Amino acid sequence: MINILLNGCNGKMGQHITQCARFREDLTIVAGLDIRPNENAPYPVYTNAANIKEKFDLIVDFSHPSALNTILGLALERKTPIVIATTGLTDEHKAMIEKASKEIPVLLSANMSLGINLLIQLVKKAAQILYGSFDIEIIEKHHNQKVDAPSGTALAIADAINAAIAPNHLKYVYDRHSSNQKRTRDEIGLHAIRGGTIVGEHSVIFAGNDEIIEIKHTALSKNLLAEGALKSAVFLYGKEPGLYRMQDIFNF
Amino acid sequence: MINILLNGCNGKMGQHITQCARFREDLTIVAGLDIRPNENAPYPVYTNAANIKEKFDLIVDFSHPSALNTILGLALERKTPIVIATTGLTDEHKAMIEKASKEIPVLLSANMSLGINLLIQLVKKAAQILYGSFDIEIIEKHHNQKVDAPSGTALAIADAINAAIAPNHLKYVYDRHSSNQKRTRDEIGLHAIRGGTIVGEHSVIFAGNDEIIEIKHTALSKNLLAEGALKSAVFLYGKEPGLYRMQDIFNF
Amino acid sequence: MINILLNGCNGKMGQHITQCARFREDLTIVAGLDIRPNENAPYPVYTNAANIKEKFDLIVDFSHPSALNTILGLALERKTPIVIATTGLTDEHKAMIEKASKEIPVLLSANMSLGINLLIQLVKKAAQILYGSFDIEIIEKHHNQKVDAPSGTALAIADAINAAIAPNHLKYVYDRHSSNQKRTRDEIGLHAIRGGTIVGEHSVIFAGNDEIIEIKHTALSKNLLAEGALKSAVFLYGKEPGLYRMQDIFNF
Amino acid sequence: MINILLNGCNGKMGQHITQCARFREDLTIVAGLDIRPNENAPYPVYTNAANIKEKFDLIVDFSHPSALNTILGLALERKTPIVIATTGLTDEHKAMIEKASKEIPVLLSANMSLGINLLIQLVKKAAQILYGSFDIEIIEKHHNQKVDAPSGTALAIADAINAAIAPNHLKYVYDRHSSNQKRTRDEIGLHAIRGGTIVGEHSVIFAGNDEIIEIKHTALSKNLLAEGALKSAVFLYGKEPGLYRMQDIFNF
Repeated sequence: MINILLNGCNGKMGQHITQCARFREDLTIVAGLDIRPNENAPYPVYTNAANIKEKFDLIVDFSHPSALNTILGLALERKTPIVIATTGLTDEHKAMIEKASKEIPVLLSANMSLGINLLIQLVKKAAQILYGSFDIEIIEKHHNQKVDAPSGTALAIADAINAAIAPNHLKYVYDRHSSNQKRTRDEIGLHAIRGGTIVGEHSVIFAGNDEIIEIKHTALSKNLLAEGALKSAVFLYGKEPGLYRMQDIFNF
Repeated sequence: MINILLNGCNGKMGQHITQCARFREDLTIVAGLDIRPNENAPYPVYTNAANIKEKFDLIVDFSHPSALNTILGLALERKTPIVIATTGLTDEHKAMIEKASKEIPVLLSANMSLGINLLIQLVKKAAQILYGSFDIEIIEKHHNQKVDAPSGTALAIADAINAAIAPNHLKYVYDRHSSNQKRTRDEIGLHAIRGGTIVGEHSVIFAGNDEIIEIKHTALSKNLLAEGALKSAVFLYGKEPGLYRMQDIFNF
Repeated sequence: MINILLNGCNGKMGQHITQCARFREDLTIVAGLDIRPNENAPYPVYTNAANIKEKFDLIVDFSHPSALNTILGLALERKTPIVIATTGLTDEHKAMIEKASKEIPVLLSANMSLGINLLIQLVKKAAQILYGSFDIEIIEKHHNQKVDAPSGTALAIADAINAAIAPNHLKYVYDRHSSNQKRTRDEIGLHAIRGGTIVGEHSVIFAGNDEIIEIKHTALSKNLLAEGALKSAVFLYGKEPGLYRMQDIFNF
Repeated sequence: MINILLNGCNGKMGQHITQCARFREDLTIVAGLDIRPNENAPYPVYTNAANIKEKFDLIVDFSHPSALNTILGLALERKTPIVIATTGLTDEHKAMIEKASKEIPVLLSANMSLGINLLIQLVKKAAQILYGSFDIEIIEKHHNQKVDAPSGTALAIADAINAAIAPNHLKYVYDRHSSNQKRTRDEIGLHAIRGGTIVGEHSVIFAGNDEIIEIKHTALSKNLLAEGALKSAVFLYGKEPGLYRMQDIFNF
């Protein structure tokens, strides 16, 4: 049983994690940390790390970059592993994390979905084998309130493909309407569909000579990010100090 | 049994039609017309309409706009219905066709696929009912040699949706990458995927509040255009003079 | 503004409807009725219909067959239209409803999804046109806790197709593994996929000669049933007495 | 440039390979072998292996099990690698092949599709990572003339998943209609859709807690098997003696 301290426990994702943790027998949340107090949580919630009385084995951080310094300090002080799922980190933040990872195990991932991280690994393998005789296109679908296009995850997939194919020269094409040219081999098409309340869908298409391979991920709720964070915690617990990525969970 | 004269019988589509016609018991091709002679066809091929000896009930025209004048003259002279599947017609050509349709039955369609024409009808119905609370997006996929984007058929679908929704004001959006704005209700997204040897796929997505309706057409070969042309011929045979569209086959 | 009385307001669907109604300007829930009291609802909740003080224009019933007699009596007494979304009705219940519909407008639907009802209408049209040269298959996907297979909705779709095609003789095939025979034209394949937390997906495939048409509905949550019930209410309000179905909303 | 002898050159697949080989610069077909003579081939065709005058580096065999003894003898005599794509091999045939592979490089594959073999590898990886918290279902689609169900390839995929997950105990479920029970974790659903002229589609679905991963292969023609055979030839050329599978092409 892994005892977890949850940083950012009052946020939306914090609540998802609290709910997911209830159904697991391999871990439990023993305390929460947040800038706001909360008496309704199924564990004590602290607004000051110094007051935490519970013993914990690992920290899960779903808070905000501004809280990174404090929580990283706590992890270093207690010598506990830490899973960091905070988004919007600057290079300075990343340097802090890298330095900490020399002393404690740190897992850092911008997208905690197990499925998306697996998809990226599968797509990299497929791209290495198929590139040259297959064309690669990425289609993502999201709700009509999303502002950025394509999604950060779609770009992360494209970057992973590009890195997997030396010499890393694929161009990203967002609109074929304005060009009216034949597709070339050295491009990745990126298409952003927007509509209704679609949670998130990412599909990578490899189209070759009379055959097509498609690898697709569909999210049904944000809940899956909580699942991924807990899976990461179990993976990280007991590891040597170092900087880990969610892909490291997969033994490819 | 309908006896057909096939104009443009030596072309790729002419050959497809010849092959399809072999398996049908409700019609037969009794003669062909083409600018090049052909002794291997399963029916006599003429290079001059004046020489045709066979009696025919209907003309199917899969040739070239430059041949329109001649073939339309023949249809008027013999008082036979004519199915015109020629693409690239000018306004002048269309005026000729309209004039002829006062005397004989004419069916004109730029895309002879039964499925695409049905899809357009279904999509129009769906759009009338769903528009206002559903977002509409069109995704089309074609082979990597296609130059135009989006496909003419995708634009025809968008136009049909727009016409079905008064007051006909939906904007076409081809690229969300450059705008970084939330989607509005008054747009249709059009996405052109290109890769490998994909024959043709058109999908219309209606995304609403926690539900999505998708209507999709997949072409496996150009053969289906031949099937559609023959279906049109059977429909047109025996009709009153007038200008018909392929959608008229459907009793909606 | 339509004033609504919501029967079964404390149930899961009742809560969904309450939430959906908040965002609408064309209707409002003025009172609730349930066997259990509820002081947290945004409207007064009664356990006895006789005590309702609010004036209402229409009843939405998402309760239980055992409550049908009472709520139907109330609708008849006040001469208000009623939308009935209760499932598990017996023939006796249906007879009661039919009798009431001679005096007041009643809309009855086992599946309140706007999208599913539209899909059924589209599929009927498509089947009428394509049957004879296209094969029809239905694929449905649901979560791994669902016991019945195929889903009631999949069977309703198959029944609608069968009724649309005279002489109504298509056989339902659930398993091709045990037969090892070629498919015949007079069958509909029904396939039940089960996995994870899939909310619900129904897809109808028309496969012909080198072309395929697919019409698919995807549910992202049960919320959409609430939307459909409210849409039905707006449709029913002001109608003549009679028994309506959700398909009647669509002007096909 | 690899010089190839093509056994079974007059058959349908032999003709596909001949056509594919024309567009390649890394290999050429220098001679064909078949039970029937053929003067129209772009290379000399022999009916007796003893008469072949051309020097060849590798044999591609797309013929019949009855011709295996002869062609394997030729490969052993000339010490050339051989790609065997013949289907319907008995255990006796396989023993012959295994024995020969001690002296020459042999690649054996029942399905020469590059994509299907890649899909199997990807699915095995995914199953190893996801099994336990994801349900696995396989959907395959083929034309209405196919007699066996599910397809041999669908079963090969299921077997590969089963082998990848120790202790290899997943049951295959073909029909949920007759059971009316909740799905269990230790089953794979196999669904055979049949319709029109669908060439072949295989899709593996991993459905978990609010996320789904789907890996899908679509064949547009039988041509792709020819591509795969030539890719196998290039892979095999220059290898040590041994028995290779198409999966060995992928460096997983």
